[in-house]
Amino acid sequence: MEAAKILIDGQWRDADAESTFHAENPATGEKLAIAFPVSKWTDCDLALEAASKAAKELRNLSHEAIATFLETYAANIESAADGLVAAAREETALPIAPRLKDVELPRTTNQLRQAAAAAREESWKRATLDLERNIRSYFAPIGPVVVFGPNNFPFAFNGISGGDFAAAIAVGNPVIAKAHPLHPNTSRLLAEQALRAVQSTGFPTGAVQMLYAVSNENGLKLVSDPRVGAVGFTGSKGAGLHLKRAAEDAGKPIYLEMSSINPVIFLPGALADEQERLARELVDSCLAGAGQFCTSPNLVVLWEGPATEVFLAFVARAFGERSSHALLSSTGRKQLHAGVTALIDASAELVTGGNPVEGAAVRYENTLLRASAKQFLVRPHELQREVFGNVTMALTVANLSELEAVLDKLEGNLTGTIYSSKTSADDEIYNAIEPLLREKVGRLLNDKMPTGVAVSPAMNHGGPYPATSHPGFTSVGIPGSLTRFAMLQSYDGVREDRLPPILRDKISNPNAWRSIDGAWVKG
Amino acid sequence: MEAAKILIDGQWRDADAESTFHAENPATGEKLAIAFPVSKWTDCDLALEAASKAAKELRNLSHEAIATFLETYAANIESAADGLVAAAREETALPIAPRLKDVELPRTTNQLRQAAAAAREESWKRATLDLERNIRSYFAPIGPVVVFGPNNFPFAFNGISGGDFAAAIAVGNPVIAKAHPLHPNTSRLLAEQALRAVQSTGFPTGAVQMLYAVSNENGLKLVSDPRVGAVGFTGSKGAGLHLKRAAEDAGKPIYLEMSSINPVIFLPGALADEQERLARELVDSCLAGAGQFCTSPNLVVLWEGPATEVFLAFVARAFGERSSHALLSSTGRKQLHAGVTALIDASAELVTGGNPVEGAAVRYENTLLRASAKQFLVRPHELQREVFGNVTMALTVANLSELEAVLDKLEGNLTGTIYSSKTSADDEIYNAIEPLLREKVGRLLNDKMPTGVAVSPAMNHGGPYPATSHPGFTSVGIPGSLTRFAMLQSYDGVREDRLPPILRDKISNPNAWRSIDGAWVKG
Repeated sequence: MEAAKILIDGQWRDADAESTFHAENPATGEKLAIAFPVSKWTDCDLALEAASKAAKELRNLSHEAIATFLETYAANIESAADGLVAAAREETALPIAPRLKDVELPRTTNQLRQAAAAAREESWKRATLDLERNIRSYFAPIGPVVVFGPNNFPFAFNGISGGDFAAAIAVGNPVIAKAHPLHPNTSRLLAEQALRAVQSTGFPTGAVQMLYAVSNENGLKLVSDPRVGAVGFTGSKGAGLHLKRAAEDAGKPIYLEMSSINPVIFLPGALADEQERLARELVDSCLAGAGQFCTSPNLVVLWEGPATEVFLAFVARAFGERSSHALLSSTGRKQLHAGVTALIDASAELVTGGNPVEGAAVRYENTLLRASAKQFLVRPHELQREVFGNVTMALTVANLSELEAVLDKLEGNLTGTIYSSKTSADDEIYNAIEPLLREKVGRLLNDKMPTGVAVSPAMNHGGPYPATSHPGFTSVGIPGSLTRFAMLQSYDGVREDRLPPILRDKISNPNAWRSIDGAWVKG
Repeated sequence: MEAAKILIDGQWRDADAESTFHAENPATGEKLAIAFPVSKWTDCDLALEAASKAAKELRNLSHEAIATFLETYAANIESAADGLVAAAREETALPIAPRLKDVELPRTTNQLRQAAAAAREESWKRATLDLERNIRSYFAPIGPVVVFGPNNFPFAFNGISGGDFAAAIAVGNPVIAKAHPLHPNTSRLLAEQALRAVQSTGFPTGAVQMLYAVSNENGLKLVSDPRVGAVGFTGSKGAGLHLKRAAEDAGKPIYLEMSSINPVIFLPGALADEQERLARELVDSCLAGAGQFCTSPNLVVLWEGPATEVFLAFVARAFGERSSHALLSSTGRKQLHAGVTALIDASAELVTGGNPVEGAAVRYENTLLRASAKQFLVRPHELQREVFGNVTMALTVANLSELEAVLDKLEGNLTGTIYSSKTSADDEIYNAIEPLLREKVGRLLNDKMPTGVAVSPAMNHGGPYPATSHPGFTSVGIPGSLTRFAMLQSYDGVREDRLPPILRDKISNPNAWRSIDGAWVKG
């Protein structure tokens, strides 16, 4: 059977394939019908050539045209929602509702529209004018962006429709999307809608391209190609670190989101107040999407004592009672099981779960482990291993100084959460541990689970290594996520009529905020 | 003789030295008296421990205290100016005036004071409030910063007093400065003034530390140490790339400024108007500080023809007539000569100069080379080699398409300059080449030389690789240079009284700009 076509320079064309692959339906274990190509370098080269051309064309396009493309694409996705949701459901086994149809798809179109609004407003460019010296600067497109999307968000982080895509396009960069091999058909259907938007808005044909897969070797070659401006990657640490080194050795900015165990700390006063409600909140957060979120709480820290035992008994019971959801892939299940085994080998105790669920669907028992701070401090690296799925580990501490020692050993994470008493009962402990946790995480939460990631200008979906590759950037939140794909350009003594419109004395865009001689001014 | 002491945690202490070294006076070729230690790892470890402690102390210090330290240090430098200038003169042979005393030293204290003002104002933190969702973010200190200063600015880029130092401290990070081995005594005298400021303002003792030298191996270990937050480096590409890989493999942000040939393009109309004035401007720029500026014009692009021959004859004559200034070191002279030889080997023609000047002082003849675009296009990599010193290469192009081909092969640079006719005579060519040049350079200039780098909020002293390691950041310009040493921290649902003051509903600092629900607001 013929393999699906790749999207190159506005055309669906036959890949120069070195092999083909099929996705599977994790709900049934079945191999799906469509064959998808693993592209040889010739395909990458074609995409890079077209993207280089498109980068130049995009520079001559108005911000309005970029916004219109993004909005048209969002509307196209909505009009094709049923087919997209069905394809994503088949390839990922994620629930249709609540999730694919009513949460993730609207989130995706919302991101595209927010990116359009940012492109139209232009404030993200941070135009800075030093009028006396006639020096002016702003953020401009960085060049073609290669986006590797993850397995767990077939729409909202997809290389051809997700946050990195929206950010890179809003800046004015072409995108070469590398579809995730677990949901190639969903990616194909999204790319069809993107292409429709390209055609109907007259967008540069090389601005939106997609390959399904490349060899590891060609992946490294792709991210380090001179024609590339920057790279966005969301996925596993193993793959990420290889791409990171290749891109960085070539001097290419690469933004990776790789791993996070998202510690959630329950201070004694919080548990004293309401063990059961909090336990339910934790269980909901751990098991949502079978725990396959980058912000899933993998490490739950509690004070040794009776309240914690009641709490954990509730969690264990709920884990046992709730049916476990299908995982994204059988490979993922193998890795999950290997992770659980590694935690046990590193001295964690298995409380409940710990085995694959028999049957056609790719399921794993909801799994709770536990360890003490003393054990953690003997093997801090091994016991903070990320296990991607419906698994969490409780860590009990005997006192504040143990908790401080644990936090001192904590690696970089996307989030860190502290639940504390509604009164001031926990304030002393909070004040002692907050600075330790704060410097290890991109987002600090109080009294709520970290699994929700709002698309807010104040969001930081980022954090210190190894959660991401640079703690100064966020991959969610607009306009913050855009500057990752921009370069700073300064104009020194350049004649007024040669300046980009946004840097001229007279403002071209009444909605853009600019920093003029140290003051932020609009219009 | 005993080696100079290193500055660790507020104390001058004996280094654990593996060897010692001496600086030389490039004006006389003499070895200078003071021995300076090459520190073993134990010294690095002590500095890292003290810096970690200081990072925590700095978090509890007010922005006012940080500003006061920077201002006190600036005043101390001024009070010690004569000794500092004499030491720098002895170690670098740079002129006292115009340069060390009346340009570089005031620039240095001005940078420290601008950094103080930025610390006091807090706008650099880009506090962002999403009031409805109660999500808030800002830029916070990244942790201890290791700063490697370059050879060519003993004050303004010194690891213990320069732009990276000022930026890192203003953010609230401790600095471990690695003095440049060509001016250790200047660095020592600066550190004395820094220590006085630490003592008189009660600043954390581990916030300002200095080593003179470490082995390459320990340098790599230092930048990749878990206690380090980020690294600033200005220097050669060779050393920079080794540090880059070590830091990046450890997940540490490293900002490097490495090499740049700063193309200056004279369009036909510019030369037609005033060959002699422009030639003088170029000569002044090329020979200032013996061309030892990161923004020195190493590549001058001209249209083939009689005007260019007149222009180049003037430049050649001036190069021959003006006495060449002492270089920073005999090693630098060797590298310079090797660079000239390599350019000649790559087909460049030697017009004038090309030899070391006999005598005790470390001098090299002012050197002009030339090549055609046709030659350049055969060996683009070899013919855009940076040669650090009083050397420049003229490149003649026959027509626009040759120039476009040259620009297409150009690597990343800090600056790019276009001189054009005061009338519209060159507009067509300008419009054709500007986009090609623009994407290769951090700062684009019109009608003036790139050697001046104003400390302006709109400055970009940065650019695409290999000029720097990331095109989104500048090392000169405040507040822009500060965010390199900051991490993004988001607060999600955190109780009001637990927020950093700048993120609370009620503004703590009436001078800070904050982005509240999409609008920039002050006070």
